[in-house]
Amino acid sequence: MVKSGLLLVLSGPSGVGKGTVKSAIVEKKVFPFQYSVSMTTRKPRPGEVDGVDYFFVTKERFQEAIDNDELLEYNEYVGNFYGTPIKPVEEQLAKGNDVLLEIDVNGARKVREKMPDGVFIFLTPPDIHTLRSRLENRGTESEEVILGRIAQARKEILVMEDYDYAVVNDTVANAVSHIKAIVDAEHVSVKRVIDSYRKMVQED
Amino acid sequence: MVKSGLLLVLSGPSGVGKGTVKSAIVEKKVFPFQYSVSMTTRKPRPGEVDGVDYFFVTKERFQEAIDNDELLEYNEYVGNFYGTPIKPVEEQLAKGNDVLLEIDVNGARKVREKMPDGVFIFLTPPDIHTLRSRLENRGTESEEVILGRIAQARKEILVMEDYDYAVVNDTVANAVSHIKAIVDAEHVSVKRVIDSYRKMVQED
Repeated sequence: MVKSGLLLVLSGPSGVGKGTVKSAIVEKKVFPFQYSVSMTTRKPRPGEVDGVDYFFVTKERFQEAIDNDELLEYNEYVGNFYGTPIKPVEEQLAKGNDVLLEIDVNGARKVREKMPDGVFIFLTPPDIHTLRSRLENRGTESEEVILGRIAQARKEILVMEDYDYAVVNDTVANAVSHIKAIVDAEHVSVKRVIDSYRKMVQED
Repeated sequence: MVKSGLLLVLSGPSGVGKGTVKSAIVEKKVFPFQYSVSMTTRKPRPGEVDGVDYFFVTKERFQEAIDNDELLEYNEYVGNFYGTPIKPVEEQLAKGNDVLLEIDVNGARKVREKMPDGVFIFLTPPDIHTLRSRLENRGTESEEVILGRIAQARKEILVMEDYDYAVVNDTVANAVSHIKAIVDAEHVSVKRVIDSYRKMVQED
């Protein structure tokens, strides 16, 4: 019984610790997943291997990939383009392998449009969760600062609405534990397994 | 930040081992939950305490509970009625406590109608999952028997469609591990936490 893998999208506000959480998942082998190799127009650094670290391409080739809808999402950073090619992701999912993308919230929104069945995990800073009580308990913040932080939290919560899960990054261990549970649970969700059960019993 | 508890409904075909799995969750304290005390018309056995083991009531009182829509589900078993009162379940959920119901598939269907936001977990026998290969590998079953088992599996899969998760009870430890992951994941699902996040940041 071959099941499709899960597209796991780990995102959240800048500075929330997405990279640290992803590294912890990799280092502790919390669950197996495939990397998605990004496409970029920046030059390879010493030791970087084409097709392993990145697909290194020209700006013309990158533009062609955009025009041909070959990318799940892309963005520009200090003059270079970075993007996630769809095809290798789809190939891994078809093999039953999970794929983890760690991307910013704009990228995640684009991925949701193209692959709505992905598992979208929003990593939140603990100060969204406990913002008010922390600010108030601290007793040193002006009302203006508190209101500014609350306004920021409001915006971040609007982003969270488009996600499936909200994981508080209070400690990396806690965040990783929640993400592992999410992956385990999604693997046994009826909407993901029902087709393979149906196929199994229909094959005579 | 008070969050509602989860209504966890553990169900599945007769004989699949629902009671054994529930007992393992209780004994190993896999996650905390509240019991739902059932209402019954059967007589108390020695040592059974009203309001603890069951709410022991008359047939007239039970009929009144049915008529007043006080029960999430009920059924008759060798002349006695058994049902799940809604009110104590709702009170526990409002306090933020999870409630676990272990009931048959007919009961689970009724609960879904009244509390669609519950987490419905279908425990499947391993022979649904691996039915065909096991039967074929065994090499001793007639084609008729194989077809009969497949037909039964088909019916069971139709029931599974109304659930959120399908957990294979291959070993009790595996099933319990999946259920723990489901509970953890549901507790951080955006649809369940977004309201409390919204409330938190809107409280000035």
